[in-house]
Amino acid sequence: MDKIGICGVGLIGASWAIGFANAGFKVFVYDSHKESFITFKETSKKLIQDIRIINPAIDESKINSNIKLDCTVQEICEDAILVQESVLEDLEIKKRVFEQLDKFASKNTIIASSSSYLLISKISEFVKGKHRCINAHPALPPHIVPFVEVAGGIDTDSNIIKKAVSIYKMAKYAAITVNKETEGFVLNRLQGALLNEAVRLHEGGFASMEDIDIALKHALGIRWAFLGPFEIMDLNAPEGIKDSFTRYKKGIQNLAREQNSVPGYSEEYLNKLEIDQRKRLSYDVRNERVEKRNKMIALIRKLKLELGEDI
Amino acid sequence: MDKIGICGVGLIGASWAIGFANAGFKVFVYDSHKESFITFKETSKKLIQDIRIINPAIDESKINSNIKLDCTVQEICEDAILVQESVLEDLEIKKRVFEQLDKFASKNTIIASSSSYLLISKISEFVKGKHRCINAHPALPPHIVPFVEVAGGIDTDSNIIKKAVSIYKMAKYAAITVNKETEGFVLNRLQGALLNEAVRLHEGGFASMEDIDIALKHALGIRWAFLGPFEIMDLNAPEGIKDSFTRYKKGIQNLAREQNSVPGYSEEYLNKLEIDQRKRLSYDVRNERVEKRNKMIALIRKLKLELGEDI
Repeated sequence: MDKIGICGVGLIGASWAIGFANAGFKVFVYDSHKESFITFKETSKKLIQDIRIINPAIDESKINSNIKLDCTVQEICEDAILVQESVLEDLEIKKRVFEQLDKFASKNTIIASSSSYLLISKISEFVKGKHRCINAHPALPPHIVPFVEVAGGIDTDSNIIKKAVSIYKMAKYAAITVNKETEGFVLNRLQGALLNEAVRLHEGGFASMEDIDIALKHALGIRWAFLGPFEIMDLNAPEGIKDSFTRYKKGIQNLAREQNSVPGYSEEYLNKLEIDQRKRLSYDVRNERVEKRNKMIALIRKLKLELGEDI
Repeated sequence: MDKIGICGVGLIGASWAIGFANAGFKVFVYDSHKESFITFKETSKKLIQDIRIINPAIDESKINSNIKLDCTVQEICEDAILVQESVLEDLEIKKRVFEQLDKFASKNTIIASSSSYLLISKISEFVKGKHRCINAHPALPPHIVPFVEVAGGIDTDSNIIKKAVSIYKMAKYAAITVNKETEGFVLNRLQGALLNEAVRLHEGGFASMEDIDIALKHALGIRWAFLGPFEIMDLNAPEGIKDSFTRYKKGIQNLAREQNSVPGYSEEYLNKLEIDQRKRLSYDVRNERVEKRNKMIALIRKLKLELGEDI
């Protein structure tokens, strides 16, 4: 089976390693900190537990036998079809790492950064093989939300993007293509639009944190767990998507006109958020909530698979 | 048990009738079109089928015995604790209906409009008992997404809003309070922010409809089905919500600066959406998709209840 290189094995890198290994790829892992491999062994057990909720047949020993830890940069690059970089979110570090990866990677190896805000045109600015460099940004938590958005830079070869998308799909990721470089890609642009509006509503005194959370989780979010915005609009009026937008366009445009302020996120406001949030959820039970979140995501994904979704 | 008046028994009104009757209220229903009651009997069977997925113990005969159809306006108003208006989304019609309801309603009856975009200050402009008039806007489809956002107008008594919220909560709705009148309330403002951004991304050529839908349904939406925006941010960085916003604020603010254009929703663009969407889902299987949507929503709600959510 094809070889994948993993560069940096923190939480994101570990999740990529398990995702690819679970799909049958041979995974070679490099990390500059030796301790990361000790952490990886604990982390991977936990991640596999979560995945097991979705797929009880997951084969832990197969996954482990497909992963080779503690490789050199050269070893993860040679003959890999793709190297996935997930080091610290720091432009200068990523630039240096990409120069190294490009130096050792074989001619046809794709080099992908997991970065969410650092665009590949910047990261690969001084890289010789710019044409094979991409952003491939996962969602959180990546082991149970196998989503990736692939974006090329100004110098990326369009065939590289197509090939990368097909590799991620082979590894069972919901892989989408971002056609032009844009800060936030698709995922964070959608998320940011919602988040800024949630803060405008809260800071403007229109509703409480609790009530805004309820509107998302007990109303909008239940549909959004299995239908996208265009699919939903298509079902919202008898004649389909054009009918829906024609009925609602005036209202939606009015909202766009008002939703254009930039929240300040001042120290004072963020302190208030923290104090109010700690009244809702005390810090010592926050970790339990993270585990419950992962379990819930896994159970919804299981439900989607049972109902015929392919992801 | 307390009496609820239902004015207008289309899909929204029917859903309110069943929701209140299922919670044990005595429901009196008026509609100006006699045929609506024939349709109601068919519709209610279907709605109850969906609710049964969430709660197999739902008692159809109890619901039916709690609903009195074909009442006069006077009958639904007398001694009701709340009258829920769900007639056509037309300001002049709603104004006339509210004058009628106010004329017949008992002193302590709350009069609520299901309207999503017509604000209560306008609807009740010429109503004597303005202080007891509110917007109480449900989510779609309301029988399986029991959410309502309650908003008062400039003349609404704040105690009326509190009382209304407590009535909806007694009827097992996730009821939130909108503190100031604002077009779109909370639900449609959040939804509109996301929808406008989805269209900016699509119309701007950044991603396909299919890929934008995937980003929502296979990544963001799975979390949003059980966590609100503030709860999610609280879990996204080790120290909590302030830590999260501090890390991401620059990126989120950059997005807000860019996400301020007003999509035109031109005839040409909407035609293109319709053509492309029909290639993805042909019109003759659209109804099946609506039924699958309802089933999926019901199953996710069941899962949430099983995992300890109260709604």
